Amino acid sequence: MNEIKIFSPATVANVSCGFDVLGFCLDTIGDTMVVRKTKEKGVKITKIEGAKLPFEAKNNVAGVAALAILKAADADFGVEIEIYKNIKPGSGIGSSSASASGAVFAINELLGKPFDNQKLTYFGMKGEAVASGAEHADNVAPGIFGGFTLVKEVSPLKVVQLPTPPELYATIIHPQIEIKTSEARAILPKEVELQQAIKQWANVGSLVSALYDSDYDLIADSLNDFIVEPHRSQLIPHFDNVKKAMLEAGALGAGISGSGPSIFSLCKGKEIAEKVASTIKKVYQNTGIEFEIYLSKVNAEGIKIINKK
Amino acid sequence: MNEIKIFSPATVANVSCGFDVLGFCLDTIGDTMVVRKTKEKGVKITKIEGAKLPFEAKNNVAGVAALAILKAADADFGVEIEIYKNIKPGSGIGSSSASASGAVFAINELLGKPFDNQKLTYFGMKGEAVASGAEHADNVAPGIFGGFTLVKEVSPLKVVQLPTPPELYATIIHPQIEIKTSEARAILPKEVELQQAIKQWANVGSLVSALYDSDYDLIADSLNDFIVEPHRSQLIPHFDNVKKAMLEAGALGAGISGSGPSIFSLCKGKEIAEKVASTIKKVYQNTGIEFEIYLSKVNAEGIKIINKK
Repeated sequence: MNEIKIFSPATVANVSCGFDVLGFCLDTIGDTMVVRKTKEKGVKITKIEGAKLPFEAKNNVAGVAALAILKAADADFGVEIEIYKNIKPGSGIGSSSASASGAVFAINELLGKPFDNQKLTYFGMKGEAVASGAEHADNVAPGIFGGFTLVKEVSPLKVVQLPTPPELYATIIHPQIEIKTSEARAILPKEVELQQAIKQWANVGSLVSALYDSDYDLIADSLNDFIVEPHRSQLIPHFDNVKKAMLEAGALGAGISGSGPSIFSLCKGKEIAEKVASTIKKVYQNTGIEFEIYLSKVNAEGIKIINKK
Repeated sequence: MNEIKIFSPATVANVSCGFDVLGFCLDTIGDTMVVRKTKEKGVKITKIEGAKLPFEAKNNVAGVAALAILKAADADFGVEIEIYKNIKPGSGIGSSSASASGAVFAINELLGKPFDNQKLTYFGMKGEAVASGAEHADNVAPGIFGGFTLVKEVSPLKVVQLPTPPELYATIIHPQIEIKTSEARAILPKEVELQQAIKQWANVGSLVSALYDSDYDLIADSLNDFIVEPHRSQLIPHFDNVKKAMLEAGALGAGISGSGPSIFSLCKGKEIAEKVASTIKKVYQNTGIEFEIYLSKVNAEGIKIINKK
């Protein structure tokens, strides 16, 4: 194999109660990437469409991730990467992670799959660090593993793959405003009340149980965030109205996707996800803020191969 | 049926990362109770052996729990209760809860089982409140449900039953010192660092996953407590030495049982649990403090019926 074309999906990190640890993978929104072996070692980004991103490999998340895996494999070849972005940078649905995890997934295929998903996530995290300034795996892991993941630890990296209930859909609205990562971080409290933290880990525990049991009622009961949402939601215009509308339309739960501004909901079945989509469209269309709405099954598979040559 | 004799087991609450929410049920240590229908309504405690506890029903945890379930059922009979305590009050392995949950379990049988385990836990919690001054279900629930439980919420009560990996054993040491509940509560911080709380809920999530997958390595990786143990362990003499010895002898993890003073470990297989028992005996036998050591399989069944008449 000399060339591979892949679909690298968007992902939702945090997932209400699971701040900094949980994430899940989307299905119908994502980037396309082509990765091609070259005789010359190293990484060249030869094409970027759909977003303005740096072409120098060492400043590009896909480039840095690619360099990390090629180095670890001591590869006797290099790669050219073409990136076709559909996920808008800064949307809060894992745009940079999709580039990073797509690059390492594709190169692992070209190498003959020497690395497991834990290792791939590790390499992807190196790329992600270029975008966010810190090593996070909560968007990289669900792209690589598919479905729901729990990042138990970052150093040493330990990702736990969780099951994906079969009828789970996500509806997401991306209000096209900019939230600076630094601002989203600065608004977080350094300390939290023990009683609130207990409620949060009770919800993380019950959400994990609910995913194993495909218990949609318990998923709904568990999607609460007592710690981060009360702070970060202030940065997202009309957050409370959107969340309320999502729940009223039948969503199991709703919250901030990543550090925002996107707002996600999880729904049982496509019909409810579509109802949520039409309801939040009504909420947002008179605000004067541009927005996009995405609807997707939760993608248990993760990154997909489109073709190989 | 007019009379039932049951075995009401000891339980371990908190379970390291799961402060205030997780618990599991033991198998070989527990109280025996006889509950007998009486024509006269109300509850009489007719015998208490093994501990000095109040005989007035409204001051006795079993009595209060019994009154709660009889009232809810609008029962046309009363009960006499005999309590044979083997679990020492104040040991930190759910002594009062065993009395409360045993009483409600037995009365539910006498009533023809009108209530499910959620409801029984609720009634048991009413009794538990007499002992601890607050309604807690983290020892009552594992006795009623068996195995591992997660108390997602206390009001309204919502217990999530978790799976029990088949090879899981607990070894417990009970140093016979008194820790006042008020002191164990007062030593807890009101606020905790967000970063520590995140680590804690990552561990709760991975522990729940590990129980579903019978992943003993992940159980071991998850049994950490960054929040409570650093404070409460100060109240337990030689805690650090015992924990270290438990882990060195092969335990998957170790921590404070309930609010102490008992220290529990979880082990894969009986052989390791026995090795842990002999190792911690050596640690404690020269301390001048009286102690008991318990070894038990994790009991997936919960309270057991000995006989019925």
